[in-house]
Amino acid sequence: MLSEVLLVSAPGKVILHGEHAVVHGKVALAVALNLRTFLRLQPHSNGKVDLSLPNIGIKRAWDVARLQSLDTSFLGEGKEEKPEQGDVTTPTPEQVEKLKEVAGLPDDCAVTKRLAVLAFLYLYLSICRKQRALPSLDIVVWSELPPGAGLGSSAAYSVSLAAALLTVCEEIPNPLKDGDCVNRWTKEDLELINKWAFQGERMIHGNPSGVDNAVSTWGGALRYHQGKISSLKRPPALQILLTNTKVPRNTRALVAGVRNRLLKFPEIVAPLLTSIDAISLECERVLGEMGEAPAPEQYLVLEELIDMNQHHLNALGVGHASLDQLCQVTRAHGLHSKLTGAGGGGCGITLLKPGLEQPEVEATKQALTSCGFDCLETSIGAPGVSIHSATSLDSRVQQALGGL
Amino acid sequence: MLSEVLLVSAPGKVILHGEHAVVHGKVALAVALNLRTFLRLQPHSNGKVDLSLPNIGIKRAWDVARLQSLDTSFLGEGKEEKPEQGDVTTPTPEQVEKLKEVAGLPDDCAVTKRLAVLAFLYLYLSICRKQRALPSLDIVVWSELPPGAGLGSSAAYSVSLAAALLTVCEEIPNPLKDGDCVNRWTKEDLELINKWAFQGERMIHGNPSGVDNAVSTWGGALRYHQGKISSLKRPPALQILLTNTKVPRNTRALVAGVRNRLLKFPEIVAPLLTSIDAISLECERVLGEMGEAPAPEQYLVLEELIDMNQHHLNALGVGHASLDQLCQVTRAHGLHSKLTGAGGGGCGITLLKPGLEQPEVEATKQALTSCGFDCLETSIGAPGVSIHSATSLDSRVQQALGGL
Repeated sequence: MLSEVLLVSAPGKVILHGEHAVVHGKVALAVALNLRTFLRLQPHSNGKVDLSLPNIGIKRAWDVARLQSLDTSFLGEGKEEKPEQGDVTTPTPEQVEKLKEVAGLPDDCAVTKRLAVLAFLYLYLSICRKQRALPSLDIVVWSELPPGAGLGSSAAYSVSLAAALLTVCEEIPNPLKDGDCVNRWTKEDLELINKWAFQGERMIHGNPSGVDNAVSTWGGALRYHQGKISSLKRPPALQILLTNTKVPRNTRALVAGVRNRLLKFPEIVAPLLTSIDAISLECERVLGEMGEAPAPEQYLVLEELIDMNQHHLNALGVGHASLDQLCQVTRAHGLHSKLTGAGGGGCGITLLKPGLEQPEVEATKQALTSCGFDCLETSIGAPGVSIHSATSLDSRVQQALGGL
Repeated sequence: MLSEVLLVSAPGKVILHGEHAVVHGKVALAVALNLRTFLRLQPHSNGKVDLSLPNIGIKRAWDVARLQSLDTSFLGEGKEEKPEQGDVTTPTPEQVEKLKEVAGLPDDCAVTKRLAVLAFLYLYLSICRKQRALPSLDIVVWSELPPGAGLGSSAAYSVSLAAALLTVCEEIPNPLKDGDCVNRWTKEDLELINKWAFQGERMIHGNPSGVDNAVSTWGGALRYHQGKISSLKRPPALQILLTNTKVPRNTRALVAGVRNRLLKFPEIVAPLLTSIDAISLECERVLGEMGEAPAPEQYLVLEELIDMNQHHLNALGVGHASLDQLCQVTRAHGLHSKLTGAGGGGCGITLLKPGLEQPEVEATKQALTSCGFDCLETSIGAPGVSIHSATSLDSRVQQALGGL
C-alpha cells in the first residue's frame, strides 16, 4: 500500500469518423479528447472510504470495517479461490444486486449517481480485496467532461479509478518519479488498467464496446473494427472546437432509425456505409502521414472528409437542425464541422487548422455561443491516462479536487 | 401547306434524380415540367418570315424570296439528292457558318439571341425546303420557363418549333380535331418531332444529351442511362414548388469538381454515386407503383429519396448556401427539397404532397420569396408537346403571343 496522494487524469473521447457505420461492421476512428477527468486519491487512517464526485453532487462515506465484514467473496466467483494478481472479474447480475445493497443509496437516487457509486464500489472491492485489509481512502473525482454527452465521461471515470486503485494497491508501480510533472504507465500496466476500466464501464453501461475505456487508457487515436481495437501509430494532436448543442438525443432511437433505413433502402444505404468506411480509412491514412510529415494540404483533406461524412450522416437521418446551424456558423468562418457520436443533437467538432488567427477562433466561439451552444477550444489525440505531480495541475483543477 | 393558325406548347424539364451521377454512367430521371413554351404559327401571304421571341427581345423578319434564293442545298449535304420525307440532317460546322450569314445578326448580339435565331433558321429551312416554295409565316414563341436555369427552355423551344413547322408543312398531320381543346401527335410523329428538335438543340448546345428534347416531346418521366432514353409507363403528375435561387452557377466547373473529387477519393465517391443510382432506381420503381395504385406512403418514400439525394449532392460538393437555405425554409414547413440540375445555386424542387392546405403552401412560397428566390407552384410529369385550340389557352398566354 502506498501512502502518498495520487493525482490521476484520463481523457474523454470523440468519434472522428464512423459513428453509426460501426454498428454495421464498418471502421470507426475514436480519438482522445483533451477534456479530462481528474482524480485525487489520498490514503488516510480514519477507517473510512470517502467518495466525492462534485460534478454530480455525490459525497458518500463507508466504514472500511463494515465493507471488510461484507461477504465480498462473490467478486471472485467463478475464479480460483485465491485469484492471481491482475485477475479481472466480470460481475454477474446477481453480484450487481449485492453491490447495490452495499452502496445503500436511496431509492429515488438518479441513475447516473447510482451507477457511478456502483462502479466505484465494484472497482474498490475487486482491486483492493487482495490487500491484507481494505484501505482507508479519500477519493475525489472531478471532470471537465459534460456527462451524458457521448464524450466518454464514464470511461474516463472508470479508467482514472482503475489506474489510481491499482497504483495505490501496488498492483502496478507508480510511474511518477521525483521531479516529474506527469508520467504514464508501461504498456502492460495500461493493459491491466484498461481491463479493469472495462469492467467499470460494464457496471455503468451493461454492454459497452470497450472503445471509450481503450481511448481513455491509451490516448491518441484508435481504430475500431468489428470488435477489434488497435492504436494508430503517432497520431497528431489536432486543435478543435467541441460544441455541445445541448439538444438531448436518444441514441437507441437514432441507431434503430439507421437500421430501419438500411432495411428499407438496402441498395441506397449499404453503399453509403461503404463510403463512410472509406472516409474513416482515408482519415486514418492521412493521420498516419501527418504523424510522419505534417503538411498544410493534409488539413484540407481532413476538412473535406469532415464535410462529406457530415452529409453522409445527414443522409442516414441522424442530423438535426441544431447541427446544421453549427455547421453553417462555422462554415461562415471558413471552418468545417461534423456531428460526433449519435447525432440528432448532441456534440459537434470543428477542425482548427494551424495558423488560424485567435480573434477568428474567438469570433467563431462567440457565434456558436450566441446560438445557445456550449463551445470549448480543446484538442484531440490527447495523451491517455496519466499521473501528475500536485504542482503541475492548474489551480482550477486543484480547487475542483478540494485543494491539494 | 396548312393555312390555319397553329398553337403549340412544349414543357420544360427538371432532373428528379441522378444529376452529376449521370455523367459517370448512372441512371438519371428527367421529368417534364409544366412550365411551358407556347408557340403561335400563323401562315400569311406578305412574303415575309417573322420571328418574335418576346422573352429575349427578338423580333426579326426575313424576305421569303431572299431565303428562297439562298443556296440552301447545303442542308441536304451528305444525303440523297431528293431527301425522303422525314429525313433529318445534321448540320456541319460549315453549314452553321452559312446560317450565321443568313441570320444577319449584329456582331454584338447576345449569344442566347444568336443561337435562338440560328436554331429557328435551321429548322425552318430544313423542314420547309421540301415545300414547292418556302412558306410565309408569322411565328411568336413565348415561354413560362426562365432561360439558362437548367430547365430545358431551349429544348422546349426547339420541340415546339419542330412540331409546328412539321405540321404546317404537312410532314405530320395536325392531330387537333374540331371541338378538341388540346391534342397530341402519334408516337411516330412524335419521334420525328424529337429528331428535328434534337437537331435544333445541337445548333444551340453543340453536343446535347438528347434528354431535354425527349422529355419535352414525350412528357411524363424519362430514364436516361448511358445514352439510352426510355419513357416511364404511366408516371404520376406530382405537384411541386420550383424555386430559382437566382444564384448563377458554372455547370462546367461543377461537373469538373465532381470528377476531381472522384479522382481524389475514388473509394469514397464511387459508392456515393452507386447510392445515387439506387435512389434513381427506387424513385423509378415508386413512380411506377404510383401510376398503378397511388397511396400516401409513396409520397413519404419520395420525400426520403429527395432528402437523401440532396445530402449526396452536397457530399459531391455541388451544394450551395442558397440551396441549404431553400431546404431549411421548406423543411420548416414540413416539406422536402433538393437541388435540380447542376447545383451550386440554380433551381430546387419541393414536393407538395396531396392534401396540403393551400395557406401552408402559400406561406412556404412567401418564405422562399422573402429569401430573394423566385418560386412557382407547378407540376412535373406533365404532357409533352401538344397542340391547342385558341380558346383553350388562358388569357395570359394569349396576350403573351400577341393576341389570338
